[in-house]
Amino acid sequence: MNSSFFTAEKTSEGVLERDFTVGDVPGVLWSPASGADRAPLVLMGHGGGTHKRWPAMIGRAHRLVTGAGLHVACIDAPGHGDRPRTAYDEQEIAVMHRAMTAGEPVGPIVVRYNADLAERAVPEWRATLDALQELPEIGTAGPVGYYGLNMGTAIGVPLTAAEPRITAAVFGLHWPDALAEAAKRITIPVEFAMQWDDEHIPREAALALFDAFASKEKSLHVNAGRHKELPRFEADSAVRFFARHLVRTVTVPA
Amino acid sequence: MNSSFFTAEKTSEGVLERDFTVGDVPGVLWSPASGADRAPLVLMGHGGGTHKRWPAMIGRAHRLVTGAGLHVACIDAPGHGDRPRTAYDEQEIAVMHRAMTAGEPVGPIVVRYNADLAERAVPEWRATLDALQELPEIGTAGPVGYYGLNMGTAIGVPLTAAEPRITAAVFGLHWPDALAEAAKRITIPVEFAMQWDDEHIPREAALALFDAFASKEKSLHVNAGRHKELPRFEADSAVRFFARHLVRTVTVPA
Repeated sequence: MNSSFFTAEKTSEGVLERDFTVGDVPGVLWSPASGADRAPLVLMGHGGGTHKRWPAMIGRAHRLVTGAGLHVACIDAPGHGDRPRTAYDEQEIAVMHRAMTAGEPVGPIVVRYNADLAERAVPEWRATLDALQELPEIGTAGPVGYYGLNMGTAIGVPLTAAEPRITAAVFGLHWPDALAEAAKRITIPVEFAMQWDDEHIPREAALALFDAFASKEKSLHVNAGRHKELPRFEADSAVRFFARHLVRTVTVPA
Repeated sequence: MNSSFFTAEKTSEGVLERDFTVGDVPGVLWSPASGADRAPLVLMGHGGGTHKRWPAMIGRAHRLVTGAGLHVACIDAPGHGDRPRTAYDEQEIAVMHRAMTAGEPVGPIVVRYNADLAERAVPEWRATLDALQELPEIGTAGPVGYYGLNMGTAIGVPLTAAEPRITAAVFGLHWPDALAEAAKRITIPVEFAMQWDDEHIPREAALALFDAFASKEKSLHVNAGRHKELPRFEADSAVRFFARHLVRTVTVPA
């Protein structure tokens, strides 16, 4: 690993933000601006239709960096952000938009398309983790977290099942269909978020995915409200979760 | 209200602890030792078979006082702590112990006995609140919270449904049978805890009670583990919940 790994950097509000590319996958690494102490890494997966620098990603990264002193990495998923779409991507997205416009259920399409994206994304994440662990401020000794909701869960569950370096994960807002089998192989601490009045994901489906995790230590956070109404305080809960499992001391704004 | 309201007081770790009696009901009020500023009040209900000065009550009270600057009051439930048991109390407790010893389900007995206790306890809590609101450091203007699990929920749900002064509540670990109708009349913000592997309360029962609250703003915290294995970090979550809903600034240990 040499300094050419990073292609751009800036610092704001105590957070150093650096761009990188692994293969043809672009990513961002957020780190404490204060310094070079080795710290654990959280891999953060964005949701469907968004990208690595979506406002929610930047907001969560800043909370994790300033609240718990962690490194946080996010890469563009296949067909998202700065990455090209394949003909298959275009087709599935068109089918999804037609269903939304017609007021038809999008669940089956999202489940199918996200499963395909996950197959492509899991090896990309593992290569990204290899590269990031070569940085002296991350290294191979520290624990690694994964944090992703929606499509970030569709990719994160098979990634976590396959990747022994990940030792704690925050998931949520997804159907169990393509994920329950992988979830049954996951035994690390998990925090899972669902919306009680989700207009897309039935309660029973969300509860079934939470139930599937084999983890002895797992928490489910249910909030009243529709799919996109997840309360912002759940982002602080994720900071505390990673602080409990990845680091020893933490300061979290209440 | 004169100073004779309190019968004893001591201070430890920044918390002033004062004993009081309203009618023949003994209680404890925990307050910030630092001072006389008016602050909101949390009513705290203890669980079955315990009392107002049970270690978990003292621990939660200290977190609420030092973390959010609140006053916290707990009274002995009928037949608990320093209060005499009636013949009916003795009979129900004997039935419950026989069921436990025989390995039979205690749920139906607990539900029935707790409903009786709640009928007796609700007017006691309302009289206690009247008395505490005469203290200058509490007053009638500020919001009031309620925090009780297990039997504390069996008493707290009908109390909260009947008592408009209560504006935020933390409940959990109870069956819906005797409580769902009262829960349907509750519209204030609620945080509710359940254990995913509770050996006494079936998942569907706990979820049904959470579902029954009419509150637009409600959160359910599910944790893996048996009935008595509620993680201690849920007590910090309750502090943050009351801080969000009763006060403006807060410091909570993560």
